Amino acid sequence: MELTRRHALAGAAGFVAAPLLPAAPASSAAPIADKQAPSFYRYKVGDIQVTVVSDGKNVFKLEDSFIPNAKRDDVNAALEKAFMPRDMVSIYFAPLVINTGGKLIVIDTGNGALSKANSKGANGLFADNMAAAGFDPKNVDIVVISHFHTDHVNGLLTAEGMPAFPNAEVLVPATEWKFWMDDGEMSRAPAGRMQGLFKNNRNIFEAGLKKKVTPYEWGKEIAPSLTSVETVGHTPGHTSYVLASGSAKVFIQSDVTNNPNLFATNPGWHASFDQDGDVAEKTRRRIYDMVVAERLQVQGFHYPFPGLGNVVKDGNGYRVVPASWNPVI
Amino acid sequence: MELTRRHALAGAAGFVAAPLLPAAPASSAAPIADKQAPSFYRYKVGDIQVTVVSDGKNVFKLEDSFIPNAKRDDVNAALEKAFMPRDMVSIYFAPLVINTGGKLIVIDTGNGALSKANSKGANGLFADNMAAAGFDPKNVDIVVISHFHTDHVNGLLTAEGMPAFPNAEVLVPATEWKFWMDDGEMSRAPAGRMQGLFKNNRNIFEAGLKKKVTPYEWGKEIAPSLTSVETVGHTPGHTSYVLASGSAKVFIQSDVTNNPNLFATNPGWHASFDQDGDVAEKTRRRIYDMVVAERLQVQGFHYPFPGLGNVVKDGNGYRVVPASWNPVI
Repeated sequence: MELTRRHALAGAAGFVAAPLLPAAPASSAAPIADKQAPSFYRYKVGDIQVTVVSDGKNVFKLEDSFIPNAKRDDVNAALEKAFMPRDMVSIYFAPLVINTGGKLIVIDTGNGALSKANSKGANGLFADNMAAAGFDPKNVDIVVISHFHTDHVNGLLTAEGMPAFPNAEVLVPATEWKFWMDDGEMSRAPAGRMQGLFKNNRNIFEAGLKKKVTPYEWGKEIAPSLTSVETVGHTPGHTSYVLASGSAKVFIQSDVTNNPNLFATNPGWHASFDQDGDVAEKTRRRIYDMVVAERLQVQGFHYPFPGLGNVVKDGNGYRVVPASWNPVI
Repeated sequence: MELTRRHALAGAAGFVAAPLLPAAPASSAAPIADKQAPSFYRYKVGDIQVTVVSDGKNVFKLEDSFIPNAKRDDVNAALEKAFMPRDMVSIYFAPLVINTGGKLIVIDTGNGALSKANSKGANGLFADNMAAAGFDPKNVDIVVISHFHTDHVNGLLTAEGMPAFPNAEVLVPATEWKFWMDDGEMSRAPAGRMQGLFKNNRNIFEAGLKKKVTPYEWGKEIAPSLTSVETVGHTPGHTSYVLASGSAKVFIQSDVTNNPNLFATNPGWHASFDQDGDVAEKTRRRIYDMVVAERLQVQGFHYPFPGLGNVVKDGNGYRVVPASWNPVI
């Protein structure tokens, strides 16, 4: 091919141009890299620095039970509209590290070290990417948990079941804490996923953290510049946040939607992860109408990395307009 | 605030929760990082690995001359619609490093080392980010240039004016080469920007590279798996590419649009950078109609990093749907 190309060019171009080297050097065949760039991303909110730190992804086959109130063909149509493969679902995870200048705050902790092993490195990457971003978990002052699903709480413990943020106060939504720690709720929970979540939460918070947590209410400044916002439905105590500094603000939505290509586009769809689908949908519409009206930037835990964007109305749903990546800060 | 919060929570929550530590440790006040993540991103096209390597950005005040055939109010409306600041233009630069397994290919080279100094590190970052991605410029076999604007060719030379890719063959569009090396064209070029471009190109290709380049024609496989595509207007020899491996394909658009938030949304707008605005617009519409019809992924040099996406029709223009960031490869 080299010869053919050079021959064609030499003939057609009508002028002489000397190749730099008569023969290609033996420097070629550089090995193909097997690692993605460390997936963290920094931005400022007023005086505060946010670092989005990817925990990786989970890719699984689309089952009809994933969105019980949507037709499979409609889900596939939404996937195709978003240029995602049919019959597959991709879910991304993005905890945050927030440096207020005085406090180092983590919001949600990803799938944890055991999931890293079980997923063969597809997720559970928060600790690795946090280290790549230059953060030492020992320096974290406050860990804020939005709700008690495995992809948010499992990173609270190391592979050995010890606190992953040994010097941090762990803040949890009071309503969430009450629900998952209630023995009656646990005994009434359906077998399977819900029973598994109860057991997992007991393991994390009782065996791991020895119940050393600080529950928080909604509508309070629970950490410097960080105000909790009630966004229930996904779980009984599901919480979002407003991070504000000066006139700058970002709405940290947690799981108000999962992947926005499915659930912002179709706010009426109820993911199987939503404990109360009707309430979750009401919350989703209320919050998205609010962020649209206020032109408020949104940071989404399950948005594709780095997960910062604005929301616009689009047809019967919403669309996330990703913020342009800033290559220098 | 800590006391207030704890007091409020202790009263309201109705249960006891012990804080992990009675007093916050002195580990806080981690310094706020002053560096963005190294901005490179890898993806596969069939068996081939593409690494998008950011060269940084250029942010400047919107002048009426920037888009001579658009009203300032309309440009500001487009900026607002894209959640970008009014009266400011942000331009991003993203050269590519393509590893075919046999050859290491660079497409376009960014603003170069001198611009890094002049812009105080806002751009000219290709060499740094390429190193962060693990590439040694000495191992590059082929450098492909799309057209002869400074942000594409200046990275061909080091700060000392030496070839930045000392072992690489440099491929240039034959028509582009002919135009910029033609003394008649140079003498007839308007003073100011066009004269400056001619001088810059003479410096790069004559003083720096000693004319050691290989011109290429359109519609040829100019490097393994890389086919040149005529997309003139932006410059007389402006070139795009199809990178194909197996059934996978990506369209590397070069400067068919600049920032898509302005020029995909409004394909009729003529950026001052477009040497022949009418021809550039025709090319833009032709190419975008093609990539929409073929659902072909597009890699854009001036798209916000990492610059991979699909194009959809939207109103009277087009909209880029960014590909979801893959945190593991």
